[in-house]
Amino acid sequence: MIDPRVASGLRDLLPAEMIPRERILATFRHTFSSYGFLPIETPHIERMEVLTGKGAGSDEVLRQIFEVTNKGGTPGELALRFDLTVPLARFVAKHIEEVGIPFKRYAIGSVFRGERPAKGRFREFVQCDFDTIGTESALADAETAQIIHESLKAAKVPPFTITLNNRKILDGLLESLDLAGKTGAVLRSLDKLAKIGRDGVAAELQRSDVEGNSGLSNDQAARILDFAETGRGGAEVLNAAENRLGTHPKAAEGIANLRTVFDLLDAGGVSSDRLAIDLGLARGLDYYTGIVYETTVDGWEKFGSIASGGRYDNLASLFISRRLPGVGASIGLDRLMALMGEAGCLGGTTATAPVLIANFPGTDPAVGFRMAAQLRKAGIGVEIYPEPAQIGKQMGYGSKHGHKLAIIVGPNEVAAQVFNIRYLATRHEDKGLAWSVLEDSVQGALQILEQEDLRS
Amino acid sequence: MIDPRVASGLRDLLPAEMIPRERILATFRHTFSSYGFLPIETPHIERMEVLTGKGAGSDEVLRQIFEVTNKGGTPGELALRFDLTVPLARFVAKHIEEVGIPFKRYAIGSVFRGERPAKGRFREFVQCDFDTIGTESALADAETAQIIHESLKAAKVPPFTITLNNRKILDGLLESLDLAGKTGAVLRSLDKLAKIGRDGVAAELQRSDVEGNSGLSNDQAARILDFAETGRGGAEVLNAAENRLGTHPKAAEGIANLRTVFDLLDAGGVSSDRLAIDLGLARGLDYYTGIVYETTVDGWEKFGSIASGGRYDNLASLFISRRLPGVGASIGLDRLMALMGEAGCLGGTTATAPVLIANFPGTDPAVGFRMAAQLRKAGIGVEIYPEPAQIGKQMGYGSKHGHKLAIIVGPNEVAAQVFNIRYLATRHEDKGLAWSVLEDSVQGALQILEQEDLRS
Repeated sequence: MIDPRVASGLRDLLPAEMIPRERILATFRHTFSSYGFLPIETPHIERMEVLTGKGAGSDEVLRQIFEVTNKGGTPGELALRFDLTVPLARFVAKHIEEVGIPFKRYAIGSVFRGERPAKGRFREFVQCDFDTIGTESALADAETAQIIHESLKAAKVPPFTITLNNRKILDGLLESLDLAGKTGAVLRSLDKLAKIGRDGVAAELQRSDVEGNSGLSNDQAARILDFAETGRGGAEVLNAAENRLGTHPKAAEGIANLRTVFDLLDAGGVSSDRLAIDLGLARGLDYYTGIVYETTVDGWEKFGSIASGGRYDNLASLFISRRLPGVGASIGLDRLMALMGEAGCLGGTTATAPVLIANFPGTDPAVGFRMAAQLRKAGIGVEIYPEPAQIGKQMGYGSKHGHKLAIIVGPNEVAAQVFNIRYLATRHEDKGLAWSVLEDSVQGALQILEQEDLRS
Repeated sequence: MIDPRVASGLRDLLPAEMIPRERILATFRHTFSSYGFLPIETPHIERMEVLTGKGAGSDEVLRQIFEVTNKGGTPGELALRFDLTVPLARFVAKHIEEVGIPFKRYAIGSVFRGERPAKGRFREFVQCDFDTIGTESALADAETAQIIHESLKAAKVPPFTITLNNRKILDGLLESLDLAGKTGAVLRSLDKLAKIGRDGVAAELQRSDVEGNSGLSNDQAARILDFAETGRGGAEVLNAAENRLGTHPKAAEGIANLRTVFDLLDAGGVSSDRLAIDLGLARGLDYYTGIVYETTVDGWEKFGSIASGGRYDNLASLFISRRLPGVGASIGLDRLMALMGEAGCLGGTTATAPVLIANFPGTDPAVGFRMAAQLRKAGIGVEIYPEPAQIGKQMGYGSKHGHKLAIIVGPNEVAAQVFNIRYLATRHEDKGLAWSVLEDSVQGALQILEQEDLRS
């Protein structure tokens, strides 16, 4: 016998997890589509050189790559994708003439990283990405935040905050401190502020062994940290930033961009309660060059960001010379599901069909088969129990699976051409309903339950 | 620069392919759910020994396995799944106590086979599987055919035929010819009847070098081929089979099963026009033990079967001792999409949002942003062009993408608080509509177009 376990760091998703997952994915697809984003799909397997090209992934991500080989293939040539952004860059480089710009695409799919297995960390996880390619318009920046907002709202995520910054403001600050060459290292340290605190970041900034960094002065580190720490709040934070950096052209551009985005989001119906500015937010990845986004659920910040992204100058520079700016974000489905599960807002029922037709011992199964077809035609999901087991067992199955109603037709009911409806939660039964009113009776019973649900 | 090509045998899916694909997948999920099937997901990566266990896959499939390794992992330990059935068997072995029986699950996902690249053959393709585990009921057999029927109908597949057989009938025939030990080899040859013809199969059956076969007599081969060739048609074919094999208990069981399935399908509203019997149909895989299914689109038989499956005695015998019979089928999404594309029944439009709001040079983008939010709230998908480009260019974008209407608001319209609707196909414009009737006007215009579509 072979052990039926899954490989380390991987997992099966059972119906109780999959049903809300599918529902949430459907709302994401619907939301992305309602903004004119078009779906694309790229293979799970990419050529290794596509994934490991300069800047495609961080060193850490590259160490986690899963290599793929088949018989007759050359080892080291293929690998599983570790995100959906590098495949998007390759896709756009290959197909841009055909798809044209602006190109708005969404993609939902599994990505793979050989991370050290740990609780809640999986080596396969699903990203839900949407990007607008080929425009520098602030409208696309605002729309990206709006879609994060609308997607999460439609998925019934508890109250959350979208935190915004514009990398140009931080760039301006560093340039004004003569630290332009050290941006990458400084921003990577700054991103740890929440995790290791002010003193930790200050120490790291002043160390001379930080990669690409020759050590900041105590004063430089303090100025950066002051700026980041006082730079959190609503749109009013931008006024302080303007006083400090308004004469620096790049910083001023960043500040103006965030103002426009706030105005557009207000016009687009996104409440400013859901928005925050954090002038210290850098979002690690070196390729962000403008607005950046990060989203946390209020009170569940320990889960980290569930939807993040930003604007980049040049998406496909590894592959083509044509400059393609863009902006986009990625919703981390697995982290979101884990959070919603812990927060208790995923719902409990597992049945995908509300009605169970019992297979009554002695009744011709064709009777139930015919009723099921009739009800499905009326838009009602129906499961038939496959075997003429004891009715108690069948009702137990229905209760366990979250069916709402059972239809029972014994031989006496067949003779009289009637049926019984049992409400599985209360065990109440409506008896002797005529076959001729099947759809109406079941529809009516489901409506009663729905109204009771709403009332409770 | 890195070449942005995909790896050999793989491909990108562009929006024009993805939009009908997503629509069809949504109808499959809806149909499976409406029969009470529950979604599950297993990882793309499985442990090698799970995939290569005895009988898990044919030798050909095993040769095509993609091995997966990460840094620090042991080579040869992991691989990509080549179907969804082996992972189902492993899943069921691991979780059966939790999910209970009967267990009805569906799964939709990519599988990977390192086949020799050829036109229309891909190394990654999507299977849509549904199975009922833990019952031997003929009701589940009938339901499987019914779901194939309803799924394809809902996906607007052109007229198709579901061909049925029961392996017990062929087993009975072979036993009656004293060929019980040679079933596997005989059935593999018989499956080639359509491809290599009667003479080809006869020659193969009589050869002594066929794997596991010591050579049939001329008479034995002729009897098998006669049985298969005269065994095609509607339910009446079963009468001839009964005359020939009715006294053989196993064959009689198979014949009775198909009769019950036909009766149930009739009760379930599946027209007998869509059903055929082929007593020679074996469906290669050794593990089928009862009913088998194959589905071809009428006039497009060259594409092969788009939905196939059957009943098996013991799904998870590689992993647990508990006997778990089941029945299920798999719809091959990529083959189906290729067929529908060639048959011209996928539709042409690509836009996911019917309305394009132009970004009029000189108009505050917040105006369009506000209108878009209003329309989406009314359930209408809206895309905003991100840049204030020339209106002609923006309309070209709308036409190319298949948007139906454009909303245009120039500075004059802003002053008068009105907007224009342009019908992109005819270039007709409704001008000077008041902002206060935005939703109604757009809703009305879309209804006009829909009625025209229905009429043409």
